Amino acid sequence: MIVIGELINGMYKDVARAVANREADIIQHLALEQVKDGASMLDVNMGPYSKDPVRDMRWLVETIQAVIEVPLSLDSTKADVIEEGLKIARKRAVINSTSADPERMDIIFGLAKRYNAQVIGLTMDKSGVPNSKASRLELAQTIVAKAIECGINTEDLYLDPLLLPLNVAQPQAAEVLESIHEFRLLCNPAPQVVFGLSNLTQGIKSRSLINRTFLTMAVANGLTAVILDPLDKKLMDALITAELLLNKNIYCDSFLDAYRKK
Amino acid sequence: MIVIGELINGMYKDVARAVANREADIIQHLALEQVKDGASMLDVNMGPYSKDPVRDMRWLVETIQAVIEVPLSLDSTKADVIEEGLKIARKRAVINSTSADPERMDIIFGLAKRYNAQVIGLTMDKSGVPNSKASRLELAQTIVAKAIECGINTEDLYLDPLLLPLNVAQPQAAEVLESIHEFRLLCNPAPQVVFGLSNLTQGIKSRSLINRTFLTMAVANGLTAVILDPLDKKLMDALITAELLLNKNIYCDSFLDAYRKK
Repeated sequence: MIVIGELINGMYKDVARAVANREADIIQHLALEQVKDGASMLDVNMGPYSKDPVRDMRWLVETIQAVIEVPLSLDSTKADVIEEGLKIARKRAVINSTSADPERMDIIFGLAKRYNAQVIGLTMDKSGVPNSKASRLELAQTIVAKAIECGINTEDLYLDPLLLPLNVAQPQAAEVLESIHEFRLLCNPAPQVVFGLSNLTQGIKSRSLINRTFLTMAVANGLTAVILDPLDKKLMDALITAELLLNKNIYCDSFLDAYRKK
Repeated sequence: MIVIGELINGMYKDVARAVANREADIIQHLALEQVKDGASMLDVNMGPYSKDPVRDMRWLVETIQAVIEVPLSLDSTKADVIEEGLKIARKRAVINSTSADPERMDIIFGLAKRYNAQVIGLTMDKSGVPNSKASRLELAQTIVAKAIECGINTEDLYLDPLLLPLNVAQPQAAEVLESIHEFRLLCNPAPQVVFGLSNLTQGIKSRSLINRTFLTMAVANGLTAVILDPLDKKLMDALITAELLLNKNIYCDSFLDAYRKK
């Protein structure tokens, strides 16, 4: 399971301020804490407040890489911002993200080829976010076909079925669960399947309980990567336990500690 | 989801003593508590210490039915003990259980027909408990075929893939998860699929965490009934949330309370 830490995101005011003021210690602390608690990759997102996202991306990647070397998920809607990160990333990066829109895919898959990066493909296009498993599957097929055409290895493609908030689109949670299983059967080698877990529970109660329950169900359906808050200990406990039950780790009394020390 | 409360079991010394001494209040309290916390059915098991299991079964069923009317799961290896419960059960009962052994199935399915009861079928036979999905599936097919031959509606059959303790048979957990999905496809109408959750974690640490994680994964794979401790609040929270995420209940801020008040 690839665990992508979500906390270095300019959507959070603390992070936006740290980026604006070049407070490296705040960013570095967030990077180290997330990896300590189980992240194997870190998402890097300038957020909506950045006035110079290209320079902010450069500073963020340099600042993180000064203390730790993990793969980064370079998270931006702007291709030049992503490319700035790709230029200096020391580990193989993931581009977060392309949609199924043909022009966007041309640009993003082009960058991926040039910099040997992986890509997250969101199953949405200009008409918006899908509201059924069938439309997710159709968009996923479009992305897979284009990736293959562009010479991307399908193992390096992360398909994201797009989680929607439970309080506004409750039936979509089950549609996403079924999509995961079907995405894995789309091609050989199978693509990765990922989602941003927090999207499910923006602004609703019992957030941590709902997140960890859904993540567990998604792991049972074949999820291979997830963007989440690794500092949510109960969430990480649930994830580690789900992998144990799929026989991915060996059981011992201290399996939670053993996993974290890996 | 059919939640079968497991606590009225003579394997527990308090229960065995209450049965031996005819302490009705202890049994009735256990019955009421389990139903209050979400059980829709109660398992009734004399345990290994009963000296007169036929009379004990009669007393237990009468004692429970004096305070509450829910369907009972009559849990015994002895057909005469089960029949004693069937004679006086006011709601439609479940016989817990038959194996895939032909003589046992003849007796148990015969009782089920005579008393219009449902049946739990364990995927094991005289050669023991299976150690793969394939052998579980083979035994499940044997049980389904015999049930149909005996005129049992397959909706009234609960197939149990048999959970084994994680610390002695870790790979079997994943085999059980896959079996659930396949059992549901065995016939039309689909059989129920059930297991005794506590078997997974007999005598091991992190018991509640492992139980609720596995149950969530099993629900994602199509489990329709489960035997568990409904007084484990975190376990019931996970189950209610898993059903919410499959769109079986309607989301609201107080969905946990709303479910329990049903």
